[in-house]
Amino acid sequence: MALTIGVDIGGTKVAAGVVDEDGRIVEHLLRPTPAENPDQVAHTIADAILELAKSREIEAVGLGAAGFVDETRSVVRFAPNLAWREEPLQKKVSDLVGLPVVVENDANAMAWGEARFGAGRGESHVVCVTVGTGIGGGIVLDGLLYRGRWGMGAELGHMQTVPDGRLCGCGNVGCWEQYASGSALVEEARRMARTDPERAATLLEIAGGTPDRIEGNEVTEAARQGDPVALAAFSWIARWIGQGLADLAAVLDPGCFILGGGVSNASDVWIDQARESFARSLTGRGHRPLADIRLAELGASAGLVGAADLARRR
Amino acid sequence: MALTIGVDIGGTKVAAGVVDEDGRIVEHLLRPTPAENPDQVAHTIADAILELAKSREIEAVGLGAAGFVDETRSVVRFAPNLAWREEPLQKKVSDLVGLPVVVENDANAMAWGEARFGAGRGESHVVCVTVGTGIGGGIVLDGLLYRGRWGMGAELGHMQTVPDGRLCGCGNVGCWEQYASGSALVEEARRMARTDPERAATLLEIAGGTPDRIEGNEVTEAARQGDPVALAAFSWIARWIGQGLADLAAVLDPGCFILGGGVSNASDVWIDQARESFARSLTGRGHRPLADIRLAELGASAGLVGAADLARRR
Amino acid sequence: MALTIGVDIGGTKVAAGVVDEDGRIVEHLLRPTPAENPDQVAHTIADAILELAKSREIEAVGLGAAGFVDETRSVVRFAPNLAWREEPLQKKVSDLVGLPVVVENDANAMAWGEARFGAGRGESHVVCVTVGTGIGGGIVLDGLLYRGRWGMGAELGHMQTVPDGRLCGCGNVGCWEQYASGSALVEEARRMARTDPERAATLLEIAGGTPDRIEGNEVTEAARQGDPVALAAFSWIARWIGQGLADLAAVLDPGCFILGGGVSNASDVWIDQARESFARSLTGRGHRPLADIRLAELGASAGLVGAADLARRR
Amino acid sequence: MALTIGVDIGGTKVAAGVVDEDGRIVEHLLRPTPAENPDQVAHTIADAILELAKSREIEAVGLGAAGFVDETRSVVRFAPNLAWREEPLQKKVSDLVGLPVVVENDANAMAWGEARFGAGRGESHVVCVTVGTGIGGGIVLDGLLYRGRWGMGAELGHMQTVPDGRLCGCGNVGCWEQYASGSALVEEARRMARTDPERAATLLEIAGGTPDRIEGNEVTEAARQGDPVALAAFSWIARWIGQGLADLAAVLDPGCFILGGGVSNASDVWIDQARESFARSLTGRGHRPLADIRLAELGASAGLVGAADLARRR
Repeated sequence: MALTIGVDIGGTKVAAGVVDEDGRIVEHLLRPTPAENPDQVAHTIADAILELAKSREIEAVGLGAAGFVDETRSVVRFAPNLAWREEPLQKKVSDLVGLPVVVENDANAMAWGEARFGAGRGESHVVCVTVGTGIGGGIVLDGLLYRGRWGMGAELGHMQTVPDGRLCGCGNVGCWEQYASGSALVEEARRMARTDPERAATLLEIAGGTPDRIEGNEVTEAARQGDPVALAAFSWIARWIGQGLADLAAVLDPGCFILGGGVSNASDVWIDQARESFARSLTGRGHRPLADIRLAELGASAGLVGAADLARRR
Repeated sequence: MALTIGVDIGGTKVAAGVVDEDGRIVEHLLRPTPAENPDQVAHTIADAILELAKSREIEAVGLGAAGFVDETRSVVRFAPNLAWREEPLQKKVSDLVGLPVVVENDANAMAWGEARFGAGRGESHVVCVTVGTGIGGGIVLDGLLYRGRWGMGAELGHMQTVPDGRLCGCGNVGCWEQYASGSALVEEARRMARTDPERAATLLEIAGGTPDRIEGNEVTEAARQGDPVALAAFSWIARWIGQGLADLAAVLDPGCFILGGGVSNASDVWIDQARESFARSLTGRGHRPLADIRLAELGASAGLVGAADLARRR
Repeated sequence: MALTIGVDIGGTKVAAGVVDEDGRIVEHLLRPTPAENPDQVAHTIADAILELAKSREIEAVGLGAAGFVDETRSVVRFAPNLAWREEPLQKKVSDLVGLPVVVENDANAMAWGEARFGAGRGESHVVCVTVGTGIGGGIVLDGLLYRGRWGMGAELGHMQTVPDGRLCGCGNVGCWEQYASGSALVEEARRMARTDPERAATLLEIAGGTPDRIEGNEVTEAARQGDPVALAAFSWIARWIGQGLADLAAVLDPGCFILGGGVSNASDVWIDQARESFARSLTGRGHRPLADIRLAELGASAGLVGAADLARRR
Repeated sequence: MALTIGVDIGGTKVAAGVVDEDGRIVEHLLRPTPAENPDQVAHTIADAILELAKSREIEAVGLGAAGFVDETRSVVRFAPNLAWREEPLQKKVSDLVGLPVVVENDANAMAWGEARFGAGRGESHVVCVTVGTGIGGGIVLDGLLYRGRWGMGAELGHMQTVPDGRLCGCGNVGCWEQYASGSALVEEARRMARTDPERAATLLEIAGGTPDRIEGNEVTEAARQGDPVALAAFSWIARWIGQGLADLAAVLDPGCFILGGGVSNASDVWIDQARESFARSLTGRGHRPLADIRLAELGASAGLVGAADLARRR
């Protein structure tokens, strides 16, 4: 049976694994990322691949990396967390390991993993939204991963949600990820805890008394204990998540959405509100099926599995 | 050489034409639309097809209709301008003419016509935006028309642009077409002419003195004569057009946009501003190519030509 | 004891009454308004005054009228519901009745009535907001009615709430009264009932099945019966009412707000949410007292009583 | 002739001066502010007063301080730049100097100075807006300084301009000063310079090549040299300044606005656009006079002069 290797290149760790045709991870390993040095990153990746390839026949390798990957799936044009600028990653790694290599945007790889082997199994049109610090996106259309003309499609977090809204690290204002991400959740919770500490009593207690120490986990725990500020912060992002999915449905009309990322671990608190917000904001509702909103199933390995499978279909 | 027939079914006229493989219209005719009676519409369409098919061998027929067309390209679920609800148009017409028939959303058919034979020739990833009374959209991805899971993709005019913004006929608020369409242009021009008639002197003169008589043509003519209110109204929609294209680029990363519809006839007044607004709102600019923004080339026949070609590729 | 007459000039009825120093109505009468003819309106007003003045000694007369009243309290510059343009109402009526006359904006007269004898008794700084079809406002500062430099202060309904928001009859966009009035309530309820009829089942039943027949009373009744759409419509305006009051507090720092008008009759449904929204949106909260939000107490006679008292203090 | 002393207490300097009845500064001196220690601040202020009072008979003292001052003009409840919380400043200084003392919010003192002796001479209804790092405000109504019920009126910078807009230091979002202040100008200029460095070439050259080094002076200089990004940043704040003034006119209907603060030093670049934005956003325009928008005339001494004069009228 044909095996491929998937590699998920993060800012702190490189995760690599051998994956079979059914998306199962046969073996895997972790390495720290030497983030400052592009050449060392390539060598770290190659070492991991070679070690996994020692005892098995490997057909190809898929690399998932945060950043803009060009349409030939060879070059990382720009990566926010690594020192890559126009990095010819495909060639470097391929030369080192002697195997066919493809490079994919990490959110695309995750989307593909989930669409093929996770929550989207059997669906032909899937939009995957990773709600973490920011928002990542991956799109599967007619059963194929969609990359865009220049490999830069599915930058979903940067649709504009609020004109003249909050400043985004991308240089624009009002981007979706400023309203519907884990960062937005924390910022809103801190803001309310500062101006209304009594109402945020539980949340502040959990956070050790200081608004600045509130992080996502604290908001989640406080929400589960009924803290009104934590619940309001989740309601707020849920409204915007639902609105953004409705906008995407107006453009893409997918069969289902898959929500992943850290914030989806607290989905019990907010997913119903996001579904309601989506249903109310969907244009043409009543005249069309309502796309399913599902939670990701593969967790942290979605990207690795997706990258490996995309290498098989290169 | 294989010929197909394209039919563009409007609220007042049915336009039908024989189209060759190069997108040229060999022969065409017009019939009034008996809009209130679905069966008569089907007969009118069939009569037109049969007349065109008398003297030539026709391979298939493509029908373009405003409305939600299902994913099997057979049934019109809902049409705003005709009395269709779950209308089995494909079967009705096919039974009457004895030829293979496909039904397409009219904006999709136009997009395909432009992408294949018009402004998008040679491009693989094209987003076509028809800026008329409202906004229609059609998307070509990897060289194929994109329809969505249930045939309802590319409802571009109903992405939300302004939260709690203007009411839209679709039942939502803040839809793009409330800010970037011909109706939006006229509404804004009338509003400013009412509250600042001196500044709108030229525009009001062209409109016979009455803000309520201002229509798109009046705004265009006044803008070309330098009327500051007409120019401001165009600037206003140009800003929103550019912003919406940037949002679409974040999702779809197309190689080019094609702008059609009535408002594009006045593109000399506003297209530069729309391009600037797009360039400034595009996420990741500086790290990616800037998609071209082009004007449609086929005019009113784009839908007919597109429907005919889609029938050929059925 | 000195008596004055107050007159409330509405689009359909003229209400006049004799008012004592404690704001009590000693006698009153109603006349239909001959709205199309300014001279007849003046005569109708004068006749009512003369009839009331027959049996009692009257010191002065106060007229309350919807519209822009100039800073000398003599001329109605513009009235939306009557045929007045630069109408010298003070002089006309004064000449006919032979008594001192002052003209006041009707919302100002109401605010004064409430501040002196109603919900604002004992308060020196009061902002009165009439939430009806639109939003009217009156301001009492340091114990005096505030009129502005040219008599046009307190047009509270026309602060901008949403940039590029809904169109307002005043010619601007995004005005507060497009979000926080009875019209806004009805529009939002109809919109949701149209796109989500199942959820609005109770509301639609009350309205006889048709979204277009939904008026304020229907939304109120449905909300009291727990209809989710009616409740959502009230929540929506309550949020904006609270936000607007917070904006006014940033400027005026009043001791209390008084809410009147038709929508306040349903205050049981929404007032708590408006108070919460106010408290959360108030700048500097925690470092300042929270202004009271009270309901008007004088009902429809506030304007008449206020106009009469303002005549006494002319 | 009666003389009073005005003191302007800033975060770094204490400015004190003897002021005559015509608002002229007869003598003045500067002291560094010992900002961390409230008692030392009081002593520094008292020392300055005593020195000025040595050779002249002084009637009273007015202190202007950034922060919330209570309605008795005695206590500073909260000051952002000094270590004051519920500071009984009036009593402390009065005890030390043996003269009548009043405490005023610094923006109120400035507004009074300008209204009485500067750009607002002769006007009865004046709204003063200080456009600096943030926005400060002072209001003069019917010839008197307006303080609000609890001394917290005229916090003009914290009216909400954009719902769900930018985060403000006050804990709210979308505050006017996030859109219409010097900070907003700099933030917008930096943002555009980062994403479009070519267009901002002049601005970046002036700033030494680095967006982060762009401050207000750089934007002003670049705008005067025609840099398109600097001009766009000024246009952007001018639009919001005008809109906010229109909102204030809807509430207060002043006879004139006075604009002061650091950004007004570059008024040549933006004041016309602010006036246009105001005129277009004013409700009821055409039916009312247009309030004048003037520049402050007294510069940095407005607060000192105003505080001194308010002490005279205590």
